[in-house]
Amino acid sequence: MATERIGQQFSFLVEADKLKDILRQSPVIATGRRENSAEHSWHLALTALVLREYAAEPVDLTRALKMLIVHDLVEIDAGDTFAYDTAGNASKSARERAAADRLFSLLPADLAQELRALWDEFEAHATPDARFANAVDRIQPFLQNLYAGGGAWRRHNLTREQILQRLDPIRTALPALWPSVLDGLAQLFGDAAKAAPTQS
Amino acid sequence: MATERIGQQFSFLVEADKLKDILRQSPVIATGRRENSAEHSWHLALTALVLREYAAEPVDLTRALKMLIVHDLVEIDAGDTFAYDTAGNASKSARERAAADRLFSLLPADLAQELRALWDEFEAHATPDARFANAVDRIQPFLQNLYAGGGAWRRHNLTREQILQRLDPIRTALPALWPSVLDGLAQLFGDAAKAAPTQS
Repeated sequence: MATERIGQQFSFLVEADKLKDILRQSPVIATGRRENSAEHSWHLALTALVLREYAAEPVDLTRALKMLIVHDLVEIDAGDTFAYDTAGNASKSARERAAADRLFSLLPADLAQELRALWDEFEAHATPDARFANAVDRIQPFLQNLYAGGGAWRRHNLTREQILQRLDPIRTALPALWPSVLDGLAQLFGDAAKAAPTQS
Repeated sequence: MATERIGQQFSFLVEADKLKDILRQSPVIATGRRENSAEHSWHLALTALVLREYAAEPVDLTRALKMLIVHDLVEIDAGDTFAYDTAGNASKSARERAAADRLFSLLPADLAQELRALWDEFEAHATPDARFANAVDRIQPFLQNLYAGGGAWRRHNLTREQILQRLDPIRTALPALWPSVLDGLAQLFGDAAKAAPTQS
Protein backbone atom coordinates (compact mmCIF):
# COMPACT_ATOMS: atom_id res chain seq x y z
CA MET A 1 0.00 0.00 0.00
CA ALA A 2 1.20 3.47 -0.82
CA THR A 3 1.59 5.58 2.29
CA GLU A 4 -0.21 8.91 2.38
CA ARG A 5 3.14 10.61 1.87
CA ILE A 6 3.98 8.62 -1.27
CA GLY A 7 0.47 9.30 -2.54
CA GLN A 8 1.01 13.05 -2.16
CA GLN A 9 4.35 12.86 -3.94
CA PHE A 10 2.91 10.85 -6.83
CA SER A 11 -0.06 13.26 -7.11
CA PHE A 12 2.30 16.22 -7.38
CA LEU A 13 4.41 14.50 -10.05
CA VAL A 14 1.29 13.60 -12.04
CA GLU A 15 -0.03 17.16 -11.77
CA ALA A 16 3.35 18.50 -12.88
CA ASP A 17 2.93 16.55 -16.13
CA LYS A 18 0.57 19.32 -17.25
CA LEU A 19 3.54 21.67 -17.72
CA LYS A 20 4.21 19.76 -20.97
CA ASP A 21 1.08 21.32 -22.45
CA ILE A 22 1.90 24.95 -21.56
CA LEU A 23 3.22 26.65 -24.70
CA ARG A 24 5.76 29.46 -24.67
CA GLN A 25 6.43 32.04 -27.37
CA SER A 26 9.99 30.85 -28.11
CA PRO A 27 10.35 28.32 -30.93
CA VAL A 28 12.04 24.97 -31.12
CA ILE A 29 14.79 25.76 -33.61
CA ALA A 30 14.47 22.96 -36.17
CA THR A 31 10.70 23.03 -36.66
CA GLY A 32 9.64 26.48 -35.44
CA ARG A 33 6.86 25.02 -33.26
CA ARG A 34 6.42 26.80 -29.94
CA GLU A 35 8.34 25.07 -27.19
CA ASN A 36 6.53 24.02 -24.03
CA SER A 37 7.56 25.00 -20.54
CA ALA A 38 8.65 21.50 -19.51
CA GLU A 39 11.16 21.03 -22.33
CA HIS A 40 12.26 24.66 -21.83
CA SER A 41 12.94 23.90 -18.15
CA TRP A 42 15.09 20.90 -19.13
CA HIS A 43 17.03 23.07 -21.57
CA LEU A 44 17.65 25.61 -18.80
CA ALA A 45 19.02 22.93 -16.51
CA LEU A 46 21.40 21.80 -19.27
CA THR A 47 22.37 25.42 -19.94
CA ALA A 48 23.19 25.89 -16.26
CA LEU A 49 25.54 22.87 -16.37
CA VAL A 50 27.30 24.14 -19.47
CA LEU A 51 27.56 27.88 -18.71
CA ARG A 52 28.02 27.87 -14.95
CA GLU A 53 31.67 28.97 -15.22
CA TYR A 54 30.53 32.42 -16.38
CA ALA A 55 28.51 33.22 -13.24
CA ALA A 56 29.60 36.61 -11.87
CA GLU A 57 29.18 35.43 -8.27
CA PRO A 58 29.82 32.07 -6.57
CA VAL A 59 26.83 29.82 -7.27
CA ASP A 60 25.49 26.70 -5.56
CA LEU A 61 24.71 24.69 -8.68
CA THR A 62 22.34 22.32 -6.90
CA ARG A 63 20.16 25.14 -5.64
CA ALA A 64 20.20 26.83 -9.05
CA LEU A 65 19.20 23.56 -10.74
CA LYS A 66 16.35 23.07 -8.29
CA MET A 67 15.10 26.60 -9.01
CA LEU A 68 15.24 26.02 -12.75
CA ILE A 69 13.43 22.69 -12.47
CA VAL A 70 10.50 24.17 -10.48
CA HIS A 71 10.46 27.79 -11.70
CA ASP A 72 7.74 27.39 -14.35
CA LEU A 73 5.40 24.96 -12.56
CA VAL A 74 3.08 27.84 -11.66
CA GLU A 75 2.27 28.19 -15.36
CA ILE A 76 0.11 25.07 -15.05
CA ASP A 77 -2.50 27.36 -13.50
CA ALA A 78 -1.30 30.82 -14.52
CA GLY A 79 -0.27 30.10 -18.12
CA ASP A 80 2.87 31.42 -19.77
CA THR A 81 2.92 35.21 -19.77
CA PHE A 82 4.95 36.56 -22.70
CA ALA A 83 7.78 38.67 -21.31
CA TYR A 84 6.80 41.61 -23.51
CA ASP A 85 3.04 41.50 -22.67
CA THR A 86 2.54 44.59 -20.46
CA ALA A 87 -1.07 43.89 -19.48
CA GLY A 88 -0.39 40.22 -18.77
CA ASN A 89 2.61 41.07 -16.64
CA ALA A 90 0.59 43.48 -14.48
CA SER A 91 -1.45 40.56 -13.10
CA LYS A 92 1.25 37.89 -13.43
CA SER A 93 2.61 38.02 -9.92
CA ALA A 94 -0.75 37.53 -8.19
CA ARG A 95 -1.78 34.75 -10.59
CA GLU A 96 1.48 32.92 -10.12
CA ARG A 97 1.46 33.22 -6.33
CA ALA A 98 -2.01 31.68 -6.23
CA ALA A 99 -0.75 28.87 -8.48
CA ALA A 100 2.24 28.28 -6.23
CA ASP A 101 -0.07 28.11 -3.20
CA ARG A 102 -2.09 25.34 -4.83
CA LEU A 103 0.61 23.34 -6.60
CA PHE A 104 3.30 23.09 -3.95
CA SER A 105 0.70 22.26 -1.28
CA LEU A 106 0.03 19.00 -3.10
CA LEU A 107 3.34 17.84 -1.60
CA PRO A 108 4.07 16.76 1.98
CA ALA A 109 4.70 19.89 4.06
CA ASP A 110 8.49 19.64 4.25
CA LEU A 111 8.92 19.28 0.49
CA ALA A 112 6.27 21.90 -0.20
CA GLN A 113 8.12 24.36 1.99
CA GLU A 114 11.51 23.63 0.38
CA LEU A 115 10.35 23.95 -3.23
CA ARG A 116 8.10 26.96 -2.54
CA ALA A 117 11.00 28.76 -0.87
CA LEU A 118 13.19 28.08 -3.92
CA TRP A 119 10.47 29.39 -6.23
CA ASP A 120 10.07 32.54 -4.09
CA GLU A 121 13.84 33.02 -4.16
CA PHE A 122 13.97 32.65 -7.94
CA GLU A 123 11.19 35.20 -8.34
CA ALA A 124 12.88 37.71 -6.03
CA HIS A 125 16.16 37.78 -8.06
CA ALA A 126 17.90 38.76 -4.79
CA THR A 127 20.52 36.04 -4.22
CA PRO A 128 23.50 34.93 -6.35
CA ASP A 129 21.83 31.57 -7.10
CA ALA A 130 18.60 33.29 -8.19
CA ARG A 131 20.44 35.87 -10.29
CA PHE A 132 22.37 33.11 -12.06
CA ALA A 133 19.21 31.04 -12.63
CA ASN A 134 17.33 34.05 -13.98
CA ALA A 135 20.18 34.89 -16.37
CA VAL A 136 20.10 31.27 -17.59
CA ASP A 137 16.35 31.79 -18.17
CA ARG A 138 17.29 34.70 -20.49
CA ILE A 139 20.21 33.18 -22.39
CA GLN A 140 18.28 30.09 -23.51
CA PRO A 141 15.41 32.06 -25.16
CA PHE A 142 18.10 34.33 -26.66
CA LEU A 143 19.67 31.29 -28.36
CA GLN A 144 16.28 29.85 -29.39
CA ASN A 145 15.11 33.06 -31.03
CA LEU A 146 18.50 33.93 -32.54
CA TYR A 147 19.06 30.51 -34.12
CA ALA A 148 15.46 30.42 -35.35
CA GLY A 149 16.21 33.59 -37.32
CA GLY A 150 14.31 35.92 -35.01
CA GLY A 151 11.56 33.62 -33.73
CA ALA A 152 9.15 35.26 -31.30
CA TRP A 153 11.06 38.58 -31.45
CA ARG A 154 10.34 38.93 -35.15
CA ARG A 155 6.78 37.56 -34.92
CA HIS A 156 5.98 40.21 -32.30
CA ASN A 157 8.00 42.96 -34.04
CA LEU A 158 10.14 43.64 -31.00
CA THR A 159 12.82 46.32 -31.14
CA ARG A 160 16.44 45.72 -30.31
CA GLU A 161 15.96 47.95 -27.26
CA GLN A 162 13.05 45.86 -25.94
CA ILE A 163 15.07 42.69 -26.36
CA LEU A 164 18.17 44.15 -24.72
CA GLN A 165 16.13 45.28 -21.73
CA ARG A 166 14.71 41.79 -21.34
CA LEU A 167 18.14 40.19 -21.63
CA ASP A 168 19.82 42.62 -19.21
CA PRO A 169 20.17 40.07 -16.36
CA ILE A 170 22.73 38.33 -18.60
CA ARG A 171 24.86 41.49 -18.62
CA THR A 172 25.16 41.49 -14.83
CA ALA A 173 24.99 37.78 -13.90
CA LEU A 174 26.82 36.24 -16.90
CA PRO A 175 28.92 39.24 -18.01
CA ALA A 176 31.36 37.25 -20.15
CA LEU A 177 28.44 36.25 -22.38
CA TRP A 178 27.14 39.78 -22.92
CA PRO A 179 29.37 40.57 -25.93
CA SER A 180 27.96 37.45 -27.63
CA VAL A 181 24.43 38.70 -26.97
CA LEU A 182 25.26 42.08 -28.50
CA ASP A 183 26.93 40.39 -31.49
CA GLY A 184 23.96 38.09 -32.05
CA LEU A 185 21.48 40.96 -32.03
CA ALA A 186 23.68 43.08 -34.27
CA GLN A 187 23.83 40.26 -36.76
CA LEU A 188 20.09 39.63 -36.61
CA PHE A 189 19.09 43.27 -36.95
CA GLY A 190 21.80 43.85 -39.56
CA ASP A 191 20.48 40.95 -41.60
CA ALA A 192 16.93 42.18 -41.15
CA ALA A 193 17.88 45.63 -42.47
CA LYS A 194 19.60 44.08 -45.48
CA ALA A 195 16.65 41.78 -46.12
CA ALA A 196 14.07 44.59 -45.95
CA PRO A 197 12.88 46.12 -49.23
CA THR A 198 14.65 49.35 -50.14
CA GLN A 199 13.26 52.46 -51.81
CA SER A 200 16.06 52.90 -54.34
CA MET B 1 33.18 38.69 -29.97
CA ALA B 2 32.35 35.24 -28.74
CA THR B 3 35.41 33.28 -27.76
CA GLU B 4 35.92 29.89 -29.36
CA ARG B 5 34.96 28.30 -26.05
CA ILE B 6 31.65 30.16 -25.81
CA GLY B 7 30.97 29.30 -29.43
CA GLN B 8 31.42 25.59 -28.67
CA GLN B 9 29.13 25.83 -25.64
CA PHE B 10 26.41 27.64 -27.63
CA SER B 11 26.70 25.11 -30.47
CA PHE B 12 26.19 22.24 -28.04
CA LEU B 13 23.16 23.92 -26.46
CA VAL B 14 21.64 24.59 -29.89
CA GLU B 15 22.27 20.99 -30.99
CA ALA B 16 20.67 19.76 -27.74
CA ASP B 17 17.46 21.52 -28.77
CA LYS B 18 16.84 18.59 -31.14
CA LEU B 19 16.01 16.36 -28.16
CA LYS B 20 12.62 18.14 -28.10
CA ASP B 21 11.71 16.39 -31.33
CA ILE B 22 12.60 12.85 -30.22
CA LEU B 23 9.37 11.06 -29.32
CA ARG B 24 9.11 8.35 -26.67
CA GLN B 25 6.45 5.68 -26.31
CA SER B 26 5.12 6.97 -22.97
CA PRO B 27 2.18 9.37 -23.18
CA VAL B 28 1.58 12.78 -21.70
CA ILE B 29 -1.26 11.99 -19.32
CA ALA B 30 -3.87 14.65 -20.17
CA THR B 31 -3.76 14.39 -23.96
CA GLY B 32 -2.25 10.99 -24.65
CA ARG B 33 0.28 12.41 -27.13
CA ARG B 34 3.72 10.78 -26.98
CA GLU B 35 6.05 12.74 -24.74
CA ASN B 36 9.41 13.85 -26.08
CA SER B 37 12.74 13.06 -24.48
CA ALA B 38 13.44 16.66 -23.40
CA GLU B 39 10.24 17.09 -21.39
CA HIS B 40 10.72 13.55 -20.06
CA SER B 41 14.20 14.50 -18.86
CA TRP B 42 12.78 17.52 -17.03
CA HIS B 43 10.16 15.32 -15.38
CA LEU B 44 12.90 12.94 -14.23
CA ALA B 45 14.83 15.79 -12.63
CA LEU B 46 11.69 16.88 -10.78
CA THR B 47 11.03 13.28 -9.75
CA ALA B 48 14.56 13.01 -8.35
CA LEU B 49 13.95 16.11 -6.19
CA VAL B 50 10.67 14.77 -4.86
CA LEU B 51 11.52 11.08 -4.32
CA ARG B 52 15.17 11.30 -3.29
CA GLU B 53 14.38 10.33 0.31
CA TYR B 54 13.55 6.78 -0.82
CA ALA B 55 17.00 6.05 -2.28
CA ALA B 56 18.32 2.78 -0.84
CA GLU B 57 21.88 4.11 -0.76
CA PRO B 58 23.33 7.58 -0.02
CA VAL B 59 23.00 9.67 -3.18
CA ASP B 60 24.78 12.81 -4.39
CA LEU B 61 21.73 14.63 -5.73
CA THR B 62 23.76 17.00 -7.91
CA ARG B 63 25.47 14.15 -9.75
CA ALA B 64 22.18 12.30 -10.14
CA LEU B 65 20.52 15.44 -11.54
CA LYS B 66 23.37 15.94 -14.01
CA MET B 67 23.00 12.33 -15.19
CA LEU B 68 19.26 12.72 -15.66
CA ILE B 69 19.69 16.00 -17.55
CA VAL B 70 22.16 14.48 -20.06
CA HIS B 71 21.11 10.82 -20.12
CA ASP B 72 18.92 10.97 -23.24
CA LEU B 73 20.96 13.40 -25.38
CA VAL B 74 22.32 10.47 -27.40
CA GLU B 75 18.80 9.92 -28.75
CA ILE B 76 19.32 12.97 -30.99
CA ASP B 77 21.36 10.63 -33.22
CA ALA B 78 20.31 7.19 -32.02
CA GLY B 79 16.56 7.77 -31.58
CA ASP B 80 14.49 6.52 -28.68
CA THR B 81 14.64 2.74 -28.46
CA PHE B 82 11.48 1.32 -26.87
CA ALA B 83 12.50 -0.61 -23.77
CA TYR B 84 10.61 -3.70 -24.95
CA ASP B 85 12.02 -3.70 -28.53
CA THR B 86 14.39 -6.70 -28.54
CA ALA B 87 15.91 -6.09 -31.99
CA GLY B 88 16.35 -2.36 -31.36
CA ASN B 89 18.01 -3.00 -28.05
CA ALA B 90 20.57 -5.37 -29.58
CA SER B 91 22.12 -2.46 -31.50
CA LYS B 92 21.26 0.27 -29.01
CA SER B 93 24.52 0.38 -27.11
CA ALA B 94 26.74 0.82 -30.18
CA ARG B 95 24.42 3.43 -31.72
CA GLU B 96 24.29 5.42 -28.49
CA ARG B 97 28.05 5.29 -27.92
CA ALA B 98 28.63 6.70 -31.40
CA ALA B 99 26.10 9.44 -30.64
CA ALA B 100 27.83 10.26 -27.36
CA ASP B 101 31.17 10.48 -29.18
CA ARG B 102 29.77 13.07 -31.56
CA LEU B 103 27.52 15.10 -29.26
CA PHE B 104 29.69 15.59 -26.21
CA SER B 105 32.70 16.44 -28.39
CA LEU B 106 30.88 19.59 -29.50
CA LEU B 107 31.79 20.93 -26.05
CA PRO B 108 35.17 22.20 -24.83
CA ALA B 109 37.27 19.20 -23.74
CA ASP B 110 36.84 19.63 -19.98
CA LEU B 111 33.04 19.82 -20.16
CA ALA B 112 32.88 17.06 -22.77
CA GLN B 113 34.86 14.79 -20.48
CA GLU B 114 32.72 15.58 -17.43
CA LEU B 115 29.35 15.04 -19.11
CA ARG B 116 30.49 11.98 -21.08
CA ALA B 117 31.75 10.38 -17.86
CA LEU B 118 28.38 11.01 -16.21
CA TRP B 119 26.58 9.47 -19.20
CA ASP B 120 28.87 6.43 -19.11
CA GLU B 121 28.24 6.09 -15.38
CA PHE B 122 24.48 6.30 -15.86
CA GLU B 123 24.63 3.62 -18.54
CA ALA B 124 26.74 1.28 -16.39
CA HIS B 125 24.24 1.25 -13.46
CA ALA B 126 27.21 0.51 -11.20
CA THR B 127 27.26 3.36 -8.65
CA PRO B 128 24.64 4.47 -6.09
CA ASP B 129 24.03 7.73 -8.01
CA ALA B 130 23.53 5.84 -11.29
CA ARG B 131 21.28 3.23 -9.68
CA PHE B 132 19.12 5.98 -8.17
CA ALA B 133 18.97 7.88 -11.47
CA ASN B 134 18.06 4.74 -13.40
CA ALA B 135 15.29 3.90 -10.92
CA VAL B 136 13.94 7.46 -11.35
CA ASP B 137 13.98 6.75 -15.11
CA ARG B 138 11.66 3.78 -14.41
CA ILE B 139 9.27 5.31 -11.89
CA GLN B 140 8.35 8.28 -14.13
CA PRO B 141 7.23 6.13 -17.11
CA PHE B 142 5.43 3.89 -14.58
CA LEU B 143 3.39 6.90 -13.44
CA GLN B 144 2.84 8.16 -17.02
CA ASN B 145 1.53 4.83 -18.27
CA LEU B 146 -0.43 4.03 -15.13
CA TYR B 147 -2.24 7.37 -14.97
CA ALA B 148 -2.90 7.26 -18.72
CA GLY B 149 -4.84 4.04 -18.13
CA GLY B 150 -2.16 1.74 -19.54
CA GLY B 151 -0.55 3.98 -22.15
CA ALA B 152 2.27 2.37 -24.08
CA TRP B 153 1.97 -0.86 -22.08
CA ARG B 154 -1.54 -1.44 -23.34
CA ARG B 155 -0.82 -0.20 -26.88
CA HIS B 156 1.98 -2.75 -27.14
CA ASN B 157 0.08 -5.50 -25.30
CA LEU B 158 2.77 -5.95 -22.67
CA THR B 159 2.32 -8.52 -19.94
CA ARG B 160 2.55 -7.73 -16.24
CA GLU B 161 5.72 -9.83 -16.15
CA GLN B 162 7.40 -7.81 -18.92
CA ILE B 163 6.55 -4.58 -17.13
CA LEU B 164 7.73 -5.83 -13.74
CA GLN B 165 11.06 -6.90 -15.24
CA ARG B 166 11.53 -3.45 -16.77
CA LEU B 167 10.64 -1.72 -13.47
CA ASP B 168 12.84 -3.97 -11.33
CA PRO B 169 15.49 -1.26 -10.68
CA ILE B 170 12.82 0.47 -8.57
CA ARG B 171 12.60 -2.60 -6.32
CA THR B 172 16.29 -2.41 -5.45
CA ALA B 173 17.09 1.33 -5.65
CA LEU B 174 13.77 2.81 -4.37
CA PRO B 175 12.48 -0.16 -2.34
CA ALA B 176 9.90 1.82 -0.36
CA LEU B 177 8.10 2.58 -3.63
CA TRP B 178 7.93 -1.02 -4.84
CA PRO B 179 4.63 -1.86 -3.06
CA SER B 180 3.06 1.13 -4.86
CA VAL B 181 4.31 -0.24 -8.19
CA LEU B 182 2.81 -3.65 -7.46
CA ASP B 183 -0.46 -2.05 -6.34
CA GLY B 184 -0.64 0.08 -9.47
CA LEU B 185 -0.12 -2.86 -11.79
CA ALA B 186 -2.59 -5.01 -9.85
CA GLN B 187 -5.20 -2.29 -10.22
CA LEU B 188 -4.47 -1.82 -13.92
CA PHE B 189 -4.51 -5.51 -14.78
CA GLY B 190 -7.46 -6.15 -12.45
CA ASP B 191 -9.46 -3.41 -14.17
CA ALA B 192 -8.44 -4.79 -17.57
CA ALA B 193 -9.71 -8.24 -16.63
CA LYS B 194 -13.00 -6.80 -15.41
CA ALA B 195 -13.36 -4.66 -18.50
CA ALA B 196 -12.70 -7.57 -20.89
CA PRO B 197 -15.69 -9.29 -22.48
CA THR B 198 -16.69 -12.51 -20.72
CA GLN B 199 -17.97 -15.79 -22.18
CA SER B 200 -20.86 -16.27 -19.77
